[in-house]
Amino acid sequence: MGRIIVEVMPKPEILDPQGKAIAGALSHQGFTEFTDVRQGKRFELTVEGDVTEEALEAARKAAEGVLSNPVIEDVVGIYAEGK
Amino acid sequence: MGRIIVEVMPKPEILDPQGKAIAGALSHQGFTEFTDVRQGKRFELTVEGDVTEEALEAARKAAEGVLSNPVIEDVVGIYAEGK
Repeated sequence: MGRIIVEVMPKPEILDPQGKAIAGALSHQGFTEFTDVRQGKRFELTVEGDVTEEALEAARKAAEGVLSNPVIEDVVGIYAEGK
Repeated sequence: MGRIIVEVMPKPEILDPQGKAIAGALSHQGFTEFTDVRQGKRFELTVEGDVTEEALEAARKAAEGVLSNPVIEDVVGIYAEGK
C-alpha cells in the first residue's frame, strides 16, 4: 500500500482570510515570530501496491481537476510519501 | 525571509467525511487508482530572516496549541521550507 501526498495552497496574489485570522490568533497568544500565515490543503491518496509513475500521473490530473481550484489555488507538491 | 511548513492531518481513527466525499468524486470521474483519500491542512508560517531553532520551537507549540485540535488531529510535519 502506497500513499501520494498532494499539497495545495492559495495563490500568492489571492487574499487568504483564514490565514490572516490565524496570524491574528497566533499574535494574540504571544507567537510574535510569525509575520504571515497562509493555510492550504494536504491530501493523502492511498493506492494499492507501490506508488507507480502511472499513479503519480493520475494524481497530477486529479490535483489539477478535482483537488484544487486552478483559478485561486496552486498545486505546490505531489510526491510519494516517504520520498 | 524564511518559511516554516506545518502539516496537520485527521487522526487515523477519526472519520474524515470530506476525504470520503473526495474519494467518491475521484472515483466518479474515473480515477479508480485511489482506494482512500484523507484531507488535512498545510500551513505556511513566515518568519523574518532565516528559520532558527527558536522559530521552529515556537512553530511546534503553535502547531499543537493553535493550528491543530489534538483530540482529532495529528501534527504530521514541521520543517523549514526547502529543508
